[in-house]
Amino acid sequence: MLNVNYVNPFIGATLQALEMMAAVRPERGTPFVKTDQTAKGDISGVIGLAGETTGSVAVTFPESLARRIYTNLVGEEATEITDEVRDSIGELANMIAGGAKAELAQQGCSFQIAIPTIVVGEGHTIDHKGQGPCLVVPFTLDGEVFWLEVSLS
Amino acid sequence: MLNVNYVNPFIGATLQALEMMAAVRPERGTPFVKTDQTAKGDISGVIGLAGETTGSVAVTFPESLARRIYTNLVGEEATEITDEVRDSIGELANMIAGGAKAELAQQGCSFQIAIPTIVVGEGHTIDHKGQGPCLVVPFTLDGEVFWLEVSLS
Repeated sequence: MLNVNYVNPFIGATLQALEMMAAVRPERGTPFVKTDQTAKGDISGVIGLAGETTGSVAVTFPESLARRIYTNLVGEEATEITDEVRDSIGELANMIAGGAKAELAQQGCSFQIAIPTIVVGEGHTIDHKGQGPCLVVPFTLDGEVFWLEVSLS
Repeated sequence: MLNVNYVNPFIGATLQALEMMAAVRPERGTPFVKTDQTAKGDISGVIGLAGETTGSVAVTFPESLARRIYTNLVGEEATEITDEVRDSIGELANMIAGGAKAELAQQGCSFQIAIPTIVVGEGHTIDHKGQGPCLVVPFTLDGEVFWLEVSLS
């Protein structure tokens, strides 16, 4: 399903979740179709979508940005990726999938949301094995880039 | 949901999928409740479960084992983690979730399966953010260990 309309609710939910959670307003870049393992990051929240529509969503951050989001969220510094930082990224993934779900349901695209899994590892990549293409959206925050990936079948 | 009965179908499906796909018979270890980011690996297949029951499953391999499974599957060597190796691990994750789904449905535990995502990164860890505990099952194959993780809410 190569339809950019389907990625917009995820983009909107990402911006909204980050503003609500962490009071940050990243700048979104232009979505593109993933052709390789472009989005290298240090911590990702990954969440499966299953039902009439099937897919997966991932949001991938460099460690420094993930720690900053955590700090903005709770008002405490994190000098490394702690359990609490992982929880924040899991909650963010949940909010992105949940926000998009509500909007897409109105467009007749329905799914249920699995639990988030958090991947931690320096420079890891994520590959979505659905039938459809994977759209990648880069976001910039204070000169650092994080990535939203959406694959729907 | 701390019920080892729910993990058994995933264990059975793992053994069956590896025997069918790669003609290997790993030895299963004792399941335990995950309390930290124990299972470090180089390549993981992660798949979300959503519906009446919600959860996620991950199978995490060291690179050498993933390449061996690929070689057994297609009869070709892989000197690194290629797209084809990733595809094999994605297909394995699919078979594990699909096999367990059928058996658990008979026990009245129903879910649908998201698409697999493949994580690649040396020594990465995976953390499942469900309501319930995450059960980890170590498997040994020719002296190397891989890990099955199941979290159901």
